[in-house]
Amino acid sequence: MSNNGEVVNLSPVNVILGSQWGDEGKGKLVDILAKDFDIVARCQGGANAGHTIVADGKKYALHLVPSGILNEATTCVVGNGVVLDIEQLFKEIDNLNIRGRKNKLLISDRAHVVFRLHRECDALREAELSKSSKAIGTTKRGIGPCYGTKVQRTGVRIGDLVNNFDYAAERFRAMVEGERKRFESFPKISEYDPEDELRQLKERLPQLKELVVDTVSFLRSCRAAGRSILVEGANAAMLDIDFGTYPYVTSSNCTIGGVFTGLGIGAGAVDQVIGIVKAYMTRVGEGPFPTEVDGVLAENLRRIGHEYGTTTARPRRVGWFDAPVVRYTNTLNEYTAINLTKLDVLDDFEEVKICVAYKLGGRTLSYGEMPSTLDELSKVEVEYEVMAGWKTKTAACRKFSDLPEAAQKYVLRLEELVGVHIKWVGVGPSREDIIVRENLVHPLKRQRTE
Amino acid sequence: MSNNGEVVNLSPVNVILGSQWGDEGKGKLVDILAKDFDIVARCQGGANAGHTIVADGKKYALHLVPSGILNEATTCVVGNGVVLDIEQLFKEIDNLNIRGRKNKLLISDRAHVVFRLHRECDALREAELSKSSKAIGTTKRGIGPCYGTKVQRTGVRIGDLVNNFDYAAERFRAMVEGERKRFESFPKISEYDPEDELRQLKERLPQLKELVVDTVSFLRSCRAAGRSILVEGANAAMLDIDFGTYPYVTSSNCTIGGVFTGLGIGAGAVDQVIGIVKAYMTRVGEGPFPTEVDGVLAENLRRIGHEYGTTTARPRRVGWFDAPVVRYTNTLNEYTAINLTKLDVLDDFEEVKICVAYKLGGRTLSYGEMPSTLDELSKVEVEYEVMAGWKTKTAACRKFSDLPEAAQKYVLRLEELVGVHIKWVGVGPSREDIIVRENLVHPLKRQRTE
Ligand SMILES: Nc1nc2c(ncn2[C@@H]2O[C@H](COP(=O)(O)OP(=O)(O)O)[C@@H](O)[C@H]2O)c(=O)[nH]1
Ligand SMILES: Nc1nc2c(ncn2[C@@H]2O[C@H](COP(=O)(O)OP(=O)(O)O)[C@@H](O)[C@H]2O)c(=O)[nH]1
Repeated sequence: MSNNGEVVNLSPVNVILGSQWGDEGKGKLVDILAKDFDIVARCQGGANAGHTIVADGKKYALHLVPSGILNEATTCVVGNGVVLDIEQLFKEIDNLNIRGRKNKLLISDRAHVVFRLHRECDALREAELSKSSKAIGTTKRGIGPCYGTKVQRTGVRIGDLVNNFDYAAERFRAMVEGERKRFESFPKISEYDPEDELRQLKERLPQLKELVVDTVSFLRSCRAAGRSILVEGANAAMLDIDFGTYPYVTSSNCTIGGVFTGLGIGAGAVDQVIGIVKAYMTRVGEGPFPTEVDGVLAENLRRIGHEYGTTTARPRRVGWFDAPVVRYTNTLNEYTAINLTKLDVLDDFEEVKICVAYKLGGRTLSYGEMPSTLDELSKVEVEYEVMAGWKTKTAACRKFSDLPEAAQKYVLRLEELVGVHIKWVGVGPSREDIIVRENLVHPLKRQRTE
Repeated sequence: MSNNGEVVNLSPVNVILGSQWGDEGKGKLVDILAKDFDIVARCQGGANAGHTIVADGKKYALHLVPSGILNEATTCVVGNGVVLDIEQLFKEIDNLNIRGRKNKLLISDRAHVVFRLHRECDALREAELSKSSKAIGTTKRGIGPCYGTKVQRTGVRIGDLVNNFDYAAERFRAMVEGERKRFESFPKISEYDPEDELRQLKERLPQLKELVVDTVSFLRSCRAAGRSILVEGANAAMLDIDFGTYPYVTSSNCTIGGVFTGLGIGAGAVDQVIGIVKAYMTRVGEGPFPTEVDGVLAENLRRIGHEYGTTTARPRRVGWFDAPVVRYTNTLNEYTAINLTKLDVLDDFEEVKICVAYKLGGRTLSYGEMPSTLDELSKVEVEYEVMAGWKTKTAACRKFSDLPEAAQKYVLRLEELVGVHIKWVGVGPSREDIIVRENLVHPLKRQRTE
């Protein structure tokens, strides 16, 4: 090995991101594309993300493990930006039957540990907020509190746990003390014993150790060796801590920046950015939702689309497609292509509506504008366009031209409104239920279509 | 205005980042390059960053306002990723004498407010930690606590303050209650009155309102209009919340990802990434520092280099150049060029040392590897190379060939070790004291030299 900075070519990284409020169906495209990639990585979020994949008739619910895991040859990486619930991780590893498989799943030594403590605090905080009906509607997986201790620098990282357990334990105890002070009702949770949690973690160490690596230098060496990397975003742009409908957001960056901060790859690394866009809108938990519908229409949409949370089983709020939202998240992420999902869910409707613009104070907002405050967002007037429904099953369509004309028109209108090429159209939950409008992106070079 | 996603070309964004533990002299290059850019933006950090610029014999200490501010034609932008101390902001605005100047300084409506509350909590937390000698050595500017409330979703954003003060005040009071519970000694700080803080803020609103915009759509419209943007990083890669020497880090991402999360620009936006690299190492506050020196050598380096904090006036710890650190941060950021700063500080030394590699457990670490735990980092063996000093003043050198041969050799050896072209060499504090080894980067296209 030379001490010099060698001249190396680093292979590009491709990214899949949620463009709305989550549950767009990111997992399915990751699963489909995984066979073209050596590595599938997650960069942020935790077990609050829920991907459902249907493969060979079997249904898998993944929360922490990247959706590429079902592909035999793929190495899955959990990056430093993820917050890791170790019990949940091993549950998934056991369900997937991948324990002991070398280089199948690698965990960053810089990722933060989600303790049961964090889950307890999540519940306590939501209870506190709901007294004044201001609960955020979190998944109570401890994600927010864990990012909280990370940023306050009282967190514990996986590397500390496996390399220096005593140091990690000491930091953990200090963290417990802090939270105990913060939440008056904390000592009352008599079932929760921090020392017990430590003991359980200690038992996991030998298994955990096998998975932990420095993912920053691992990914660099992969890229230097020309191996291809696909990044799977969790949550979605409108839930981003900076750009989402704050405070009704998740505690991490679910936009493109989270890929860099969550993996430690350089500015030039990212090539394709694929936005996953559902053909209508859904939202879990509280917060603004300009195109929300209710009544029978909502019930139908929810039932046909199976819009119930993977992680919490909560019924999702539903609404019409919101172009300003996707235009805004395209401003944030600059998609090179879009996968429109769940078009088939609209098969039965007489007519479909599209929100084409927001007006605020009489002014039509321009491309990429999104009011940053709840106050303004609650005041936007939504402009709709109504299109004829297609009243035809689309699930068997495999070419764009197979789609009923009205469905083609709907897709093309969305493409026009957002200004990004829609490359894939999902027409059902299975791997096969997808229309590819061109050859797959990889390994094409970045081409802006906006 | 059309409802459609227009096909637009967005101009590229160039970035300046700190590559070590901060205080590399980022402000000077920003100030020099500002005349070539329409916009200079900050994306993260707060008033903990301190830039010192010497222009036309006058010294300016900036903490929040971007260093591009001294250039007449430049618009400065404070992005959503920054945490904003409003009193500090107006102090700087008044010092700079730019009050009322239209489009001179714009603040993101999504940036979080640093309250005096956060500064109080910063001090309380450090006091708590120092009881067990574990203080982080923060600047006590409330940065960490503010990012803490942001991530916990109890924060208040600038947009809320100016658009809906009552809502912001209500959230602020809830935040105070939370912190009051957390810190036993909180009620004892009798001087701190939250209602008083609110009253003062309210008085500032008319002035503040004039500065606040949606910087995400502002930057997009600038890029669509072909205007050039320079981003000025604050703090530095080794202080990054994810990649730095945790927990001795700052609470934001100071690597390239923070540019995306802190401004809302897409993956394809960033062109040049310039790493600012000091010719030796310094560090403020606690935490590991493998090449640290002490005794007379340290005193000399500190005195000659004026290594005292701009924000806190604390003496900085000093040490020899550490190639593994800059190689690691190049892995994270992928610099397209480097500005080596403060070469002149080494003018008087008989010999200069360079750390060329780390060894850990007998193994020489490869390019980009950096132990993630304090435990491992404390165990690395540092391999030095010794080079002859040049014992000649370099401050008047304006071409690379003007430098004494030994100084040239030193620069070229660093370039070789890091593997990135050193385009600028700083030889003194003033704007003029710089060697440019080629035409300035802008507006060249991205060229990898690694
Ligand atoms: N009907 C239909 N279902 C789909 C399609 N694409 C994905 N799904 C299903 O939609 C759900 C995706 O939601 P979820 O897993 O919560 O989304 P993710 O978190 O973004 O992966 C899963 O049950 C998928 O099997 C599609 O094109 N049509
Ligand atoms: N001697 C010398 N001083 C420099 C050079 N470049 C910048 N400086 C000074 O170094 C200091 C930069 O430190 P600081 O402002 O804390 O760094 P920043 O936060 O990265 O901008 C300022 O006092 C500059 O005037 C250089 O090449 N030589």
